[in-house]
Amino acid sequence: MEIIKSPTGKEITCKSWQQEGLLRLLLNCLDPDIAKAPEELVAYGGRGKVARDIESLKAIVNALMNLENDETLLIQSGKPVGVFRTFEYAPRVIMAGALLVPHWSNWEYFHKLEERGLTAFGQSTAGSWAYIGTQGILQGTWETFGQVAKRHFGGTLKGKMVLTSGLGEMGSAQPLAITANGGVAIVADVDRAIVKKRLISSMIDIMADSLGEALEMAGEYIAKGEPVSIGLCGNAADVYGYFVSHKITPDVVTDQTPAHDLESYIPSGLSPREAHLLAEEEPERYEKMVMETIRRHVRAMVELKNMGAVVFDYGNNLREQGRKAGIEDAFCFPGFASEYIRPLFCEGRGPFRWVALSGDPEDIYKTDEVILSLFKGDTRLHDWLNFVERRFMFHGLPARVCWLNYKERSVFGKIINEMVTSGKLKAPIAITRDHMDAAAVASPFRETEAMKDGSDAIADWPVLNALLNCSSGATLVGIYQGGGVGIGYSIHSGVTVIADGTEQAQKRLDHVLKADPALGVIRYADAGYETAREIIKDPDFPAKVVS
Amino acid sequence: MEIIKSPTGKEITCKSWQQEGLLRLLLNCLDPDIAKAPEELVAYGGRGKVARDIESLKAIVNALMNLENDETLLIQSGKPVGVFRTFEYAPRVIMAGALLVPHWSNWEYFHKLEERGLTAFGQSTAGSWAYIGTQGILQGTWETFGQVAKRHFGGTLKGKMVLTSGLGEMGSAQPLAITANGGVAIVADVDRAIVKKRLISSMIDIMADSLGEALEMAGEYIAKGEPVSIGLCGNAADVYGYFVSHKITPDVVTDQTPAHDLESYIPSGLSPREAHLLAEEEPERYEKMVMETIRRHVRAMVELKNMGAVVFDYGNNLREQGRKAGIEDAFCFPGFASEYIRPLFCEGRGPFRWVALSGDPEDIYKTDEVILSLFKGDTRLHDWLNFVERRFMFHGLPARVCWLNYKERSVFGKIINEMVTSGKLKAPIAITRDHMDAAAVASPFRETEAMKDGSDAIADWPVLNALLNCSSGATLVGIYQGGGVGIGYSIHSGVTVIADGTEQAQKRLDHVLKADPALGVIRYADAGYETAREIIKDPDFPAKVVS
Ligand SMILES: NC(=O)c1ccc[n+]([C@@H]2O[C@H](COP(=O)([O-])OP(=O)(O)OC[C@H]3O[C@@H](n4cnc5c(N)ncnc54)[C@H](O)[C@@H]3O)[C@@H](O)[C@H]2O)c1
Ligand SMILES: NC(=O)c1ccc[n+]([C@@H]2O[C@H](COP(=O)([O-])OP(=O)(O)OC[C@H]3O[C@@H](n4cnc5c(N)ncnc54)[C@H](O)[C@@H]3O)[C@@H](O)[C@H]2O)c1
Repeated sequence: MEIIKSPTGKEITCKSWQQEGLLRLLLNCLDPDIAKAPEELVAYGGRGKVARDIESLKAIVNALMNLENDETLLIQSGKPVGVFRTFEYAPRVIMAGALLVPHWSNWEYFHKLEERGLTAFGQSTAGSWAYIGTQGILQGTWETFGQVAKRHFGGTLKGKMVLTSGLGEMGSAQPLAITANGGVAIVADVDRAIVKKRLISSMIDIMADSLGEALEMAGEYIAKGEPVSIGLCGNAADVYGYFVSHKITPDVVTDQTPAHDLESYIPSGLSPREAHLLAEEEPERYEKMVMETIRRHVRAMVELKNMGAVVFDYGNNLREQGRKAGIEDAFCFPGFASEYIRPLFCEGRGPFRWVALSGDPEDIYKTDEVILSLFKGDTRLHDWLNFVERRFMFHGLPARVCWLNYKERSVFGKIINEMVTSGKLKAPIAITRDHMDAAAVASPFRETEAMKDGSDAIADWPVLNALLNCSSGATLVGIYQGGGVGIGYSIHSGVTVIADGTEQAQKRLDHVLKADPALGVIRYADAGYETAREIIKDPDFPAKVVS
Repeated sequence: MEIIKSPTGKEITCKSWQQEGLLRLLLNCLDPDIAKAPEELVAYGGRGKVARDIESLKAIVNALMNLENDETLLIQSGKPVGVFRTFEYAPRVIMAGALLVPHWSNWEYFHKLEERGLTAFGQSTAGSWAYIGTQGILQGTWETFGQVAKRHFGGTLKGKMVLTSGLGEMGSAQPLAITANGGVAIVADVDRAIVKKRLISSMIDIMADSLGEALEMAGEYIAKGEPVSIGLCGNAADVYGYFVSHKITPDVVTDQTPAHDLESYIPSGLSPREAHLLAEEEPERYEKMVMETIRRHVRAMVELKNMGAVVFDYGNNLREQGRKAGIEDAFCFPGFASEYIRPLFCEGRGPFRWVALSGDPEDIYKTDEVILSLFKGDTRLHDWLNFVERRFMFHGLPARVCWLNYKERSVFGKIINEMVTSGKLKAPIAITRDHMDAAAVASPFRETEAMKDGSDAIADWPVLNALLNCSSGATLVGIYQGGGVGIGYSIHSGVTVIADGTEQAQKRLDHVLKADPALGVIRYADAGYETAREIIKDPDFPAKVVS
């Protein structure tokens, strides 16, 4: 496969910017600068694919290029299946991904169907063509550690030791996010090559040769009160076990190994390469080793919690796997979402993001200025932009992530669209979000864990969310299964609107950017959360609450 | 609760017929003439509810009456949760019902959430306000026996003996459907009172005192070549066993005892009343008796198949229960859906239906005439209308069910809408369908059993179907779980369009009535079915197939 990059600039090959915007986002997901394995069509997240296979990818590109302004393209788990005549304001693309009838919703059955070419796993933003590289995850991670600091340490991680692991595509946001919040990070990854790669790309500051060295350096920085991130080659189970046996209590402990997918989680004692060999040759023995490692890994986290550390599951289904491996009290530590993200969701605040289809970083810097002047009082927003502009280079199409709330999104969207109209921006902007948003996800081990009213597993909301966005003028809408936690454990929806400067786009943006987060506020109000209940009383709240 | 009936006539209380039509359908589902238990908001199908509770019902009615022509009302498992500003062509109501994250998708968990008031089970058409009484079931049953006749007996059951059992709510459509196809039916039900009731309401023609008498009468009618339905009080296991031991081979054997729910299935040797007593007093002994009866019941069906009868499972999960009771070759006979309904789905032919919002039967008779003149060559359609007009009285709002294919639906919809415009019909017509349609359902133990490519459990299709209908101008769209086979076992989508005679409705109808069944044809073509593959090659096929 040749190298894929999104087209940039003002010339388009599709019949309007609505389609062109989606085409650029799709191709951008396969840009080697941001995609994990573009040759396998994998954008990120283990095996999150943007299309079923190469033929499907080609057929999608072709269909988008020929799609009329009143047609809609249907994508079934990464494969285009039809183009239908719809309405001008209807989505140009609708998707359903990795959905199985519930009784059959498990990895084993999924893999069988995948082998037959009948489905594909899209994770969240890979399947919906809204992956923009690690900045999205960086912001989410920064936001989480910011909340940890706020809740437990008076607003900063200064002088605090955070132990975590996994330097994968998402995990590697941790060291940056921890140091941006003032802390000292020790991050273990079993893959030496990955640790080196993160050092070279400045995602970590230092690579330690041993755990002893890492602890020594960490101590120095803690003493100085300065932030630093230390990468270390090691298996999480061994590293965390070492802390327990040596009675060292970090301030915060979490983890981003790919525990949601046991085929990617590396058992103790093996290098990644050895692990893959063994998995092929002796799958049963391999599985046993994985479960034993998970058991030790989770056991150590439970003990670190008992020793006094702030411990949380960082959305990789680790506790459930630990429970299966025999740790009965695996759920004694909370998930990050219910603990740190829920208060944000109650305000409809979530991982809003936008992409400069021009390819020009200047377009993003101009939008940064708008944000800064628009939301002057929001110091977290200022801190974030400050940090990310300084520390983060654009990869693929320039993009920005900011957690905006239910009011801010449409205000901002309107200005962006006007800037496209007036030519202040060189080309249209794609406005999208992660699937991990207030109304967009049902995931009882993550985003909807421990809901006040027990509605963790109710999956009506993400489905209503997609139907609503579909009715509101989104350019792309989809419903998916399994993002973050694997097949069987979540249902979520994605949405994108192209701000192309037209009046039509202005209407699409106005409806979607209000409805999408407002439904989130309603969902949390319905579940009994006070902040959300207050917000829906606001006479300017953009939906009528009728229950 | 006061008695609910749908308003009729030309006056409306909503802001347009789009909303009014939905309101009337909703209230019609609770008409005591068609609803099973209106005081509990149950329309049919065990516990299929139209709204979460009385407060929700009132709030829905109120919201519909106030809904603007560019707003959309969201219903979460029977509870209204918000009204959003959308577009004129967007649906007026979108719904998600009984959906749970797959890992939690089972009855036990569902009931817990239901008790907390967090969800409701809508079956199929109860939840989407499209239930119209038993005509739908009658047509489905008639269609099935018609297919049996076509496949095995040159198009008629004349001179054929059909053995079946169960004269319950759905099962009692069997004798009518069998005689309407020219056959001789022997139908056993263990409940003498039920058999009598069916005789009084003319659902069966004769009640026999013994199996011997039933066989004698059957012989006479077969000799004359005349249809008749003979009801008989007896347990299916005993009756079917008698045929085996006496070496009598019926032409067709099936069954609609409630085998899906072992608490309702009556063991041999007990009357229903004795059975209920025993079940309470000695549940374990009772369960053993049930399993032993199921074993004999299924064993006899397997043997009748070996003796040369056409045997099929009629959607009551009997084979799976037989397998559990120890019959290893229980699955040697097929399910009705894969055997007799699939060929229809391959042509996008499915349970299309429409409702006269005027309340006037004349409106339906006029549409019957249109159908008859429009599809002159279709003798099945003529036979059906002939039969149903003669044998079936309207209950609630007058309605009609016809299985139309992907081409016929939009042609018919256009004419209906024009008849509303011109005043030939007294008021608008609601056009809808069952959820058991080509693109609308994934249900591996029924509609999508034994798909050619193994895609039985892929649930992307019903979800795409709903998103597509949402984009195409449907008035109501929803996605649901569990219809027919229970929580965990199916995902399905419903749709309704109100033909109110306006140009707007014409566009809505044209898009939806083409797209909805066309996606079904694409789904079966994708799975490798030849008929469907041929159809999508038609230059007039209403969608572009792009894969
Ligand atoms: N919190 C969030 O917002 C969030 C978001 C998305 C994903 N996640 C979850 O985080 C996890 C990691 O995601 P990713 O994209 O970084 O995965 P990835 O596959 O890109 O990387 C995983 C890394 O973990 C390392 N690893 C594997 N087993 C290990 C072990 N036993 N000990 C130490 N290191 C090990 C691998 O070498 C690899 O570098 C996933 O489970 C994902 O679902 C969290
Ligand atoms: N094919 C379809 O389209 C379709 C549609 C819906 C339901 N079904 C299935 O058909 C079955 C029947 O549905 P229903 O609504 O008529 O049920 P129901 O509960 O209303 O009636 C069942 C009848 O079976 C009788 N019965 C119970 N055990 C018996 C036995 N051992 N022998 C003889 N009679 C016995 C009962 O007396 C009762 O009259 C269910 O399993 C249902 O799921 C099929």
